[in-house]
Amino acid sequence: MEKDRKLILVTNDDGYTALGVRTLMKWLEPFGEVVGVCPDGPRSAQSMAITVNQAMRIDEVKDYDGPGRLYKVNGTPVDCVKLAMHTVLDRTPDMVVSGINHGSNAAVNVIYSGTMGAAFEGCAFGFPSVGFSLTDHDPAADFSPVRPFVPKIIEEVLKNGLPEGICLNVNVPHDKGNPTEMRVTRAARGKWTDEYEKYLDPFGRPFYWLKGHFVNEEPEAEDTDEWCLSHGIVSVTPELLDRSAPLDAVWIEGLRKSLR
Amino acid sequence: MEKDRKLILVTNDDGYTALGVRTLMKWLEPFGEVVGVCPDGPRSAQSMAITVNQAMRIDEVKDYDGPGRLYKVNGTPVDCVKLAMHTVLDRTPDMVVSGINHGSNAAVNVIYSGTMGAAFEGCAFGFPSVGFSLTDHDPAADFSPVRPFVPKIIEEVLKNGLPEGICLNVNVPHDKGNPTEMRVTRAARGKWTDEYEKYLDPFGRPFYWLKGHFVNEEPEAEDTDEWCLSHGIVSVTPELLDRSAPLDAVWIEGLRKSLR
Repeated sequence: MEKDRKLILVTNDDGYTALGVRTLMKWLEPFGEVVGVCPDGPRSAQSMAITVNQAMRIDEVKDYDGPGRLYKVNGTPVDCVKLAMHTVLDRTPDMVVSGINHGSNAAVNVIYSGTMGAAFEGCAFGFPSVGFSLTDHDPAADFSPVRPFVPKIIEEVLKNGLPEGICLNVNVPHDKGNPTEMRVTRAARGKWTDEYEKYLDPFGRPFYWLKGHFVNEEPEAEDTDEWCLSHGIVSVTPELLDRSAPLDAVWIEGLRKSLR
Repeated sequence: MEKDRKLILVTNDDGYTALGVRTLMKWLEPFGEVVGVCPDGPRSAQSMAITVNQAMRIDEVKDYDGPGRLYKVNGTPVDCVKLAMHTVLDRTPDMVVSGINHGSNAAVNVIYSGTMGAAFEGCAFGFPSVGFSLTDHDPAADFSPVRPFVPKIIEEVLKNGLPEGICLNVNVPHDKGNPTEMRVTRAARGKWTDEYEKYLDPFGRPFYWLKGHFVNEEPEAEDTDEWCLSHGIVSVTPELLDRSAPLDAVWIEGLRKSLR
């Protein structure tokens, strides 16, 4: 009977205990069989890293009392998707859903994001894949601004799928009341600056800790994710799995000639 | 006087002791001041992972006797680029060069690659960035097939730069004699299959180890990296830093309507 229901694989990068993924699993229950396979601890900013030189384990979380089943893996978000496919899933999932991330994955952040790394991996398998993020790093964040948009996007993607090689990066602002609108966007151009704090250890040797802040280089561009987030609008960015540039771009011919 | 020379930041994902990066630094010496900042051990398949919750260190490799200076970092290839910028470089580099990787980064491998993760990070900083890979995992690989192509590409990129948001992924076949040609390519579509070996530990509990092999889904497509590699031709794939899909694609309008 379970076989007739949709199967949704859920993962995240904040680990299996995070409020974001527990909330997401509850909200996904009406749409099908929900199986969570998450890292056994925080794996933020793990991008699409995979574990190549270590024994991998996947264990069911025994005291989990939410909908579906929940497993933990001693690896990255991408490891979770791969190992889920190889072990606990008895059929191909209808969707891979990652998040809800505690923190924004808009603009250049998507390239470092473990949440979106898992969505890209789902996409590499050929499954419709979506990552959800709330722009609030608080472990006890209030996810209610995300609430109305999950069913809308899940229904749409379960019904119509996504084009091959495309996944969705959904970012929800937390500091603008409850959003009522979502828009399809592109990533705003921008950079992280001032990226490390320097310290001296008790023996006088320097060490560094990552920090920094993001500078949006096109704050007026209304078709970007950052613009939407700063105006209380939910951003839905379609992301390409294939990073290689289209070969019909004008400058490619110049490169061809110079490398001849 | 050093200030008048080009500055080239070198990194990799196989770690500071790898033959690939040592060879690359020697070959880059004629082009300028060479500074290597590499992980302190293997970091293959680390993609664009960054270290967010750990003290970072950068230390000069005292017994290094090659050209320029060499440093090691207790982090990922992306950490190396970021920390190099923040600490040991006194000016912005003219190029970031990553590799030479021991193993292919063609097709879908680019998304997991630490070598290319570092090149993407150089690109995110706005520097012309190139990753080099040889299709041979052997730690003692013979890098001579790569030799003629390094000066050609470095000269071109130092002279003309690269378009904003583009870096190059150069893959060289090791098993087809010495290549004489290189072509501008796109990534071949394909998938990894059969990805884990299952074991039982001495207590009867299962664990898994990543393995698998790549299946090229378009072996006849002559404009792809995989086609070139299997025909003894060096592949130069321009890669996009921005993963977000162009918003003028036809299907985007459908997505817009369905999410309204």
